[in-house]
Amino acid sequence: MSKNLTKRSEDYSKWYNELVVKADLAENSGVRGCMVIKPYGYAIWEKMQAELDRMFKETGHQNAYFPLFVPKSMFEAEEKNAEGFAKECAIVTHYRLTNDPENKGKLIVDPNAKLEEELIVRPTSEAIIWSTYKGWVQSYRDLPLLINQWANVVRWEMRTRLFLRTAEFLWQEGHTAHATKQEALSESVQMMNVYADFVENFMAIPVVKGIKTETERFAGADETYCIEALMQDGKALQAGTSHFLGQNFAKAFDVKFSNAEGKLEHVWGTSWGVSTRLMGALVMTHSDDNGLVLPPNLAPIQVVIVPIHRNDEQLEAISAQVNELVKQLRKLKIAVKYDDRTTHKPGWKFNEYELKGVPVRIAIGPNDLENGTYEIARRDTLTKEVVAKDGVVTYIQDLLETIQEEMFTRSLEFRNEHITEVNTFEEFKDVLENKTGFVSAHWDGTVETEEKIKELTKATIRCIPLDRKEEEGQCVLTGSLSKGRVLFAKAY
Amino acid sequence: MSKNLTKRSEDYSKWYNELVVKADLAENSGVRGCMVIKPYGYAIWEKMQAELDRMFKETGHQNAYFPLFVPKSMFEAEEKNAEGFAKECAIVTHYRLTNDPENKGKLIVDPNAKLEEELIVRPTSEAIIWSTYKGWVQSYRDLPLLINQWANVVRWEMRTRLFLRTAEFLWQEGHTAHATKQEALSESVQMMNVYADFVENFMAIPVVKGIKTETERFAGADETYCIEALMQDGKALQAGTSHFLGQNFAKAFDVKFSNAEGKLEHVWGTSWGVSTRLMGALVMTHSDDNGLVLPPNLAPIQVVIVPIHRNDEQLEAISAQVNELVKQLRKLKIAVKYDDRTTHKPGWKFNEYELKGVPVRIAIGPNDLENGTYEIARRDTLTKEVVAKDGVVTYIQDLLETIQEEMFTRSLEFRNEHITEVNTFEEFKDVLENKTGFVSAHWDGTVETEEKIKELTKATIRCIPLDRKEEEGQCVLTGSLSKGRVLFAKAY
Repeated sequence: MSKNLTKRSEDYSKWYNELVVKADLAENSGVRGCMVIKPYGYAIWEKMQAELDRMFKETGHQNAYFPLFVPKSMFEAEEKNAEGFAKECAIVTHYRLTNDPENKGKLIVDPNAKLEEELIVRPTSEAIIWSTYKGWVQSYRDLPLLINQWANVVRWEMRTRLFLRTAEFLWQEGHTAHATKQEALSESVQMMNVYADFVENFMAIPVVKGIKTETERFAGADETYCIEALMQDGKALQAGTSHFLGQNFAKAFDVKFSNAEGKLEHVWGTSWGVSTRLMGALVMTHSDDNGLVLPPNLAPIQVVIVPIHRNDEQLEAISAQVNELVKQLRKLKIAVKYDDRTTHKPGWKFNEYELKGVPVRIAIGPNDLENGTYEIARRDTLTKEVVAKDGVVTYIQDLLETIQEEMFTRSLEFRNEHITEVNTFEEFKDVLENKTGFVSAHWDGTVETEEKIKELTKATIRCIPLDRKEEEGQCVLTGSLSKGRVLFAKAY
Repeated sequence: MSKNLTKRSEDYSKWYNELVVKADLAENSGVRGCMVIKPYGYAIWEKMQAELDRMFKETGHQNAYFPLFVPKSMFEAEEKNAEGFAKECAIVTHYRLTNDPENKGKLIVDPNAKLEEELIVRPTSEAIIWSTYKGWVQSYRDLPLLINQWANVVRWEMRTRLFLRTAEFLWQEGHTAHATKQEALSESVQMMNVYADFVENFMAIPVVKGIKTETERFAGADETYCIEALMQDGKALQAGTSHFLGQNFAKAFDVKFSNAEGKLEHVWGTSWGVSTRLMGALVMTHSDDNGLVLPPNLAPIQVVIVPIHRNDEQLEAISAQVNELVKQLRKLKIAVKYDDRTTHKPGWKFNEYELKGVPVRIAIGPNDLENGTYEIARRDTLTKEVVAKDGVVTYIQDLLETIQEEMFTRSLEFRNEHITEVNTFEEFKDVLENKTGFVSAHWDGTVETEEKIKELTKATIRCIPLDRKEEEGQCVLTGSLSKGRVLFAKAY
């Protein structure tokens, strides 16, 4: 079966780029570094959004919307955050085009329409949101503020890749404000757990929960909690982060509240986000050389039915039966498509839905009709089974659940096989180069060692796992004292 | 009851501005012309989005996402469109900030990070989308493309007002491509009808369907269909537009397809949009001097229940009964809130939910408990009724439907009373100044007359109603021949 898709073993990176385009998820646009998310890709993103949105609301959050632009003076108010994003932000300086006097029909930036203050296109919204919160918080009764925003953000990345790193991307960003440090800390941890729950149970991608080292921490945060996933090529991918902001933004934007005793205090903050990057994680965790493999929870089409027929009469007989099945499946909220187009052959359709990752494919021909059977194929395992018509609805319903579970289990096994404990730097390098994956190693806790290891191996500390054992040891590079293992990996 | 809200009769404009802020819908931000949509306002917008999205999908459209930025050369490709938006667009010229050498801790735009080509922040997405469609369309089999996008857009307006006119606003923009002129025309009309259906039946706002004159047409369209609503102060508001683009963008971006006979043709296009402006229409159609009045379909809280009690014991007894009612209402998908906070008095709560436009308010005190009754108040009519506990669920369910219908009927009556046929220019001016509303008058069909009337009266032609009578007459200004009446009004 030829989809002209590069094999993963040949060139993983090329396979990914080709698949994202061929499966109609996204493509590069005529704007440097910006992508077009195509309808099929966007339908998957919508499913992610709906589920996350439900989870945010269940944990008490509300949505709101804040401006796209951040005036420069506001942007630089929290110094670390400003420094962290200054190198990659798009800046609006003018507000009008005018006719080019030297080139009829062309437009130039009107030099008379320069903004008094430049506007930064938000790379993240802490600045604009905390400048707003100042007006919303007076008393402890106004707290907590539990707000989320679905938005586009822009980071002027030099090397971009569809979904993984684009100049503009879509995300959600939660921004909360609390009366106490403990409450803000709990919120950051809660949202990391919400993300882990979503990514594991909805996307079928196992993650390690942990905290970032100072080097990898969000600019402006006191602590960054994260979930780290492992891709099929052994590289890690940060799937979501939740930041404990301390009082940094409250101080920068002068957000104070009077506590129950009437004393003024600075507010405590968190922020947390996941983005369209998760689409990349989805592709690179589950898909294979034949195309996408989607977990049923995220599949825009969960079941496709393809009739196999030689003439109109056969098609009619098949359709009569299939239409009934479609009705029953839809009643169960299963997203089913009956592809009875006569413009395409069954083989073409099989190929197409395999490429698109539809979890379950049902074929039915005249023999099946006679025997009272369906041929049911699983996309994830590429296995087929002939199933009796009676009870097929329950069979499909169960199968979708099984696929969702088994996709997670397989990814989890792969991930667990790719966490390797090492105790020497030779082993460390060997695992990174040959076996790949996460390397669990002792580290002396210094920025210098972290940077040296990155320089020597390109591996970074993905996280300090929350569930790591209490175990003293010697740093894999320096031999100095370490209080526990951290996870290193090459990362997207 | 004092909400410190200016009365509509005193200053309608001030009333509007105050209400939007006090009812927690939106507020001005620290960014010139950009608003913050607050959680309560955003919850209403989410309800609009969900319903529109459902309607778009039911009519065969899919969502996708296109870049925020449009390179200048792409922007100017369709000349009329470029000209129409050039005067009010935000332009990105640089991509990096750097430390200000003269001012420690401050940032300046890095002069070494100038973009080769300036990027326009999309004021609308025809250019970027048609440049993409070029790659998507080869054959008639690729058509139609029926795509919608939920996005933010930026138009650098000089005078802004919350929801009605803001530099950044949220909207959806549909962009479709078709093989024939007829199909594209039908699509434009269909989407105007979808908008009318939504605005009338969901928002309870009556609209006039019509087409725009050449002057008022979308830049780059061959025809603009619109729905026009009338606000309480007698000014019109354009609530949605649907454009037949002819082959203008297909020609500008060279989008061709080979038809069934293998001949190359340019594609036919449409685009259509509604925006957060509808929030302004909602406020100005229904609300009163006490605050918001929300139609049940759009109310984040449809029913609020307030206990009236003197002690904990009474509250407990009330809560026991109310919790059961809440359960039953939620089963029917009615959004109900039981506000049993003891930090606020019932009077404060009544005031608050009146301001927020909650359609139904239920009060229950010890007497009601004894008598087996509830006191049920309607927000729209400010009337109250004592209702027996038995059957109250059905009563509420019916009441919500009644409110939705009656809000529409009342607005329709008001609107119909404010469409006045005039035959002389004296009458024309008199109606505009005193009675206000739409003026139905003959017009000679020339741009000159349209402009002259605008200059003399500030009224513009809102639309040529689709259902206007075939009726010859004399232009209200020039006396020249007219083929039918058009609707003039002062407008937002």
